[in-house]
Amino acid sequence: MGSTSDLPIMQQAIDILKELDIETEVDVVSAHRTPEKMFDFGTTAHERGIAVIIAGAGGAAHLPGMVASLSPLPVIGVPVKSSNSIDGWDSVLSILQMPGGVPVATVALDGGKNAGILAAQIIGATQEDMRSRIMAYKQSLKEKVIAGSKQLRDNG
Amino acid sequence: MGSTSDLPIMQQAIDILKELDIETEVDVVSAHRTPEKMFDFGTTAHERGIAVIIAGAGGAAHLPGMVASLSPLPVIGVPVKSSNSIDGWDSVLSILQMPGGVPVATVALDGGKNAGILAAQIIGATQEDMRSRIMAYKQSLKEKVIAGSKQLRDNG
Amino acid sequence: MGSTSDLPIMQQAIDILKELDIETEVDVVSAHRTPEKMFDFGTTAHERGIAVIIAGAGGAAHLPGMVASLSPLPVIGVPVKSSNSIDGWDSVLSILQMPGGVPVATVALDGGKNAGILAAQIIGATQEDMRSRIMAYKQSLKEKVIAGSKQLRDNG
Amino acid sequence: MGSTSDLPIMQQAIDILKELDIETEVDVVSAHRTPEKMFDFGTTAHERGIAVIIAGAGGAAHLPGMVASLSPLPVIGVPVKSSNSIDGWDSVLSILQMPGGVPVATVALDGGKNAGILAAQIIGATQEDMRSRIMAYKQSLKEKVIAGSKQLRDNG
Amino acid sequence: MGSTSDLPIMQQAIDILKELDIETEVDVVSAHRTPEKMFDFGTTAHERGIAVIIAGAGGAAHLPGMVASLSPLPVIGVPVKSSNSIDGWDSVLSILQMPGGVPVATVALDGGKNAGILAAQIIGATQEDMRSRIMAYKQSLKEKVIAGSKQLRDNG
Amino acid sequence: MGSTSDLPIMQQAIDILKELDIETEVDVVSAHRTPEKMFDFGTTAHERGIAVIIAGAGGAAHLPGMVASLSPLPVIGVPVKSSNSIDGWDSVLSILQMPGGVPVATVALDGGKNAGILAAQIIGATQEDMRSRIMAYKQSLKEKVIAGSKQLRDNG
Amino acid sequence: MGSTSDLPIMQQAIDILKELDIETEVDVVSAHRTPEKMFDFGTTAHERGIAVIIAGAGGAAHLPGMVASLSPLPVIGVPVKSSNSIDGWDSVLSILQMPGGVPVATVALDGGKNAGILAAQIIGATQEDMRSRIMAYKQSLKEKVIAGSKQLRDNG
Amino acid sequence: MGSTSDLPIMQQAIDILKELDIETEVDVVSAHRTPEKMFDFGTTAHERGIAVIIAGAGGAAHLPGMVASLSPLPVIGVPVKSSNSIDGWDSVLSILQMPGGVPVATVALDGGKNAGILAAQIIGATQEDMRSRIMAYKQSLKEKVIAGSKQLRDNG
Repeated sequence: MGSTSDLPIMQQAIDILKELDIETEVDVVSAHRTPEKMFDFGTTAHERGIAVIIAGAGGAAHLPGMVASLSPLPVIGVPVKSSNSIDGWDSVLSILQMPGGVPVATVALDGGKNAGILAAQIIGATQEDMRSRIMAYKQSLKEKVIAGSKQLRDNG
Repeated sequence: MGSTSDLPIMQQAIDILKELDIETEVDVVSAHRTPEKMFDFGTTAHERGIAVIIAGAGGAAHLPGMVASLSPLPVIGVPVKSSNSIDGWDSVLSILQMPGGVPVATVALDGGKNAGILAAQIIGATQEDMRSRIMAYKQSLKEKVIAGSKQLRDNG
Repeated sequence: MGSTSDLPIMQQAIDILKELDIETEVDVVSAHRTPEKMFDFGTTAHERGIAVIIAGAGGAAHLPGMVASLSPLPVIGVPVKSSNSIDGWDSVLSILQMPGGVPVATVALDGGKNAGILAAQIIGATQEDMRSRIMAYKQSLKEKVIAGSKQLRDNG
Repeated sequence: MGSTSDLPIMQQAIDILKELDIETEVDVVSAHRTPEKMFDFGTTAHERGIAVIIAGAGGAAHLPGMVASLSPLPVIGVPVKSSNSIDGWDSVLSILQMPGGVPVATVALDGGKNAGILAAQIIGATQEDMRSRIMAYKQSLKEKVIAGSKQLRDNG
Repeated sequence: MGSTSDLPIMQQAIDILKELDIETEVDVVSAHRTPEKMFDFGTTAHERGIAVIIAGAGGAAHLPGMVASLSPLPVIGVPVKSSNSIDGWDSVLSILQMPGGVPVATVALDGGKNAGILAAQIIGATQEDMRSRIMAYKQSLKEKVIAGSKQLRDNG
Repeated sequence: MGSTSDLPIMQQAIDILKELDIETEVDVVSAHRTPEKMFDFGTTAHERGIAVIIAGAGGAAHLPGMVASLSPLPVIGVPVKSSNSIDGWDSVLSILQMPGGVPVATVALDGGKNAGILAAQIIGATQEDMRSRIMAYKQSLKEKVIAGSKQLRDNG
Repeated sequence: MGSTSDLPIMQQAIDILKELDIETEVDVVSAHRTPEKMFDFGTTAHERGIAVIIAGAGGAAHLPGMVASLSPLPVIGVPVKSSNSIDGWDSVLSILQMPGGVPVATVALDGGKNAGILAAQIIGATQEDMRSRIMAYKQSLKEKVIAGSKQLRDNG
Repeated sequence: MGSTSDLPIMQQAIDILKELDIETEVDVVSAHRTPEKMFDFGTTAHERGIAVIIAGAGGAAHLPGMVASLSPLPVIGVPVKSSNSIDGWDSVLSILQMPGGVPVATVALDGGKNAGILAAQIIGATQEDMRSRIMAYKQSLKEKVIAGSKQLRDNG
């Protein structure tokens, strides 16, 4: 994440990754305040056994795109509606609208949870066991909606 | 893709996937006109050996999100600025802003090429050989920019 | 509705339908979490004697459009400004901007009440008795404004 | 329609209504230039046997909402991206965002065709025969997509 | 004004008009709930000695434009950021974007005060005495800013 | 007008003012390139017998608001969608959103014609003869729409 | 600044300029309420030894652009999200979108702090000593992020 | 500039800098395709005698902000409405909305010319001679407008 102020949103990703039993490394790397650290992180992540990078940032959010330019790994970008953001539009557009050749897999504004699930799906693209965990997770979502539906109908 | 009119954008994805030597299956599946076909496609894709799904659509673009709700695989969404779109905002927002639990990995508006590269990166997350191809591709991008820079400086 | 969190808005529709003495069936059906249930609902609603469907959802709101693709009945869409929405624009655009062939009768953001009135008007399109109830309702609106006007003028 | 310049979009509605064998009455009624005519039209339409009103207009588009305020019938609003419109946003918002009590069933920007289909669905809400025609129409849409899919796969 | 909920904003106009010693008539006239009353008001205002009309409304705000279509008088429109508005954009666009032939003199969102001042300026366009009052008012604005500046500099 | 490039839009105002037999003075005054000339113009216009000022500009359009700050006369602002504008939003917002105390009577984007009509209505607020001309003009608009309606119905 | 209500944002600029040991002059100058004062300020600032001007304003924010039109000095514009602003868009666009020939160096919405830093960088463009202070300031930013990162990792 | 496709806009800056007799260095440096080159450029520019950096880019435009994070020099950002941009909003927001501590002096969309003038003004902040050239340039702008005004009045 680009700042400790992004932690509430990024914690959602950390939580779901733990729930799906995926090892995570969490750090603050600012594109604009610690560019050297970002360079080191981006160019070496794949050598340290990392498979997917989740990068969240707000305002003119350059961290996800810059990490994507430095790493061959898939990078998931989480636009954060930070206090200095114009309703989140700046975060969304500066993460999503990457030029040809350097994609960022962007999720919804403040979508930390979905970033975690997408990371799991990316690993599950080629690993059967992870895919089963995702299918179980999706089943649990379905059951919650059905329980909500039942409660609503019971209460009239 | 949701309509044959999306083909020019989606062809970019097909081309880069071919260039990176990745097997692809291309079809038109409309969320709104052929919902049953979409259901069959979404619920069975992972059983047929597909690893990543790329779904492109314009306007109120429901195909990427609906396929993501039906499949455990990672789904890449390509917002298409179709003729019935309001400057592309409808396509972007109806693909990006998925609720918690069902992510779509969204790329830039009309970003077919980036969807293809992201698909390769997703496979490369766990496969060394694919990652090498991506690194070579990125190197070729760099060289093109450096050549452009050289030409500009030579021409004064 | 797509989620129990949409209930406060959808309750407005339920209330006005009761006031107009129209039988209603209320349920939670999530396009993204319970797609099979949505399919069953959409393909069979007209066989169970339902005349009009009201579907409300927020963010990337696919429920109204997907139900409209599955059912021959008129579908009224209510964009809900949910907590994960970008000021409601995502909800509005992903419900309104349907492609040719599959309309959704969209009402204002958080316009649950108007969805109920529109449903009554749709039935009243061909049923004299319902139309009379709508005319009486409109008359009551008029009287409230005139009372407000009188009070304002009396108070100076 | 509010102006003869809206005809190309409204013609789409006329065409599909003819295709579905529904009797139509077409006229130009401007909320801003012929307000008296609009008043007469709105207050008497239901007495002349009209079941559904389709109103299209661009810019600050007041025709659909004003007719909805005058008539007990369901009113379908078609936002038109006219030459004096700001990318269509003014047309969309001034038709969609009606206050509580006076709904307009809004369709997509320039969605004349969908307005016609929605009108048919509204009649079909209570008339079996019309509903069958809509189901046949939807089947024809499906077949076109499947033919497009087949052609794409045949051409490789 | 279109609704009593617009009163806090419209009161600003009433207050400044009193301050400038201009006779006012205040009423609630809803374009959508009391269209007949609006018609009477719009077509007769100039016969009752009214010189300028100020109309405020929110959401799909049709009152200013409809009154402008009915009356030969200059109509000042005040977009109100009502509770059912999308950040005020709907109010602004549905008042501002009038078609050729029927202008509304639009002021800023929630700009009730400026509507009152503009009304005074309109009368002052041809009446020397009113213009003097406006010049005195502008002088008082200037003095307030200069006092604020002095205070800031004195406080360091 | 702020630039000769605004002439096509401002010519609409000139034409309608001529049609309504109102004396006009036309000049190019740039807020940003000739601020001294703008100052002279703004502070002396009312002394030279001018009753209403029409100011059109594009992009960060400061001319209407600055003239309004300098003159006691009513100022009509015409947002122009110039080549350096972001879809006209910058022109609209920098003219419309004036602070309390300094209104600009804003008309639609590129609404030169409406600016001219509004100027006539402002004079007509206190002059019977001008008001008659406006009523005759409005009648001519009505007849054009009715002729269009007749033609449409005759052609089937 | 255009109003004392802009002080909380502009204080950020004052604070960082003090921290960087740069002499400042602070005043309230309203483009719309005290245009003569603005004229005097803009045309004479460079003669009084001022090197850089920071101008902040909200809504239809004309102060930065008007000062830039009057002064040969670089002008930094701070868009302020004032109470009468539409989510800040009006402030941003009316400061940023200046016509060719009259630039304003615009910083982020409510970016008072960055305006101060940019002013220091402008002086540092040609003065070594100031540049050193900026480099020291940037180093302190880096250290804060690294401390935040350490704390996060220590806390797990 | 980030890409050779930005050249038409950046050429405006080069031309005005030449006109003002300022030495320039022009190069293509892509934040996303040549991040190492950008790093070298950003960290060393001030050591090579460069006083001001102008960086132009489109879409998710990270070049200006990243260079600003790497260099103590003032960085002018030019948002370019490139072919992959959503009406320029992405370019504007991803350059303008920089976090506290790392400003970018942003000019108007496609404002290459203004970037050049601002660079001259920055040098002129502390250099009398450059300031004189800017004052002469501003005088020439004024004369062009006055000539346009004269021509307009002569032609009636």
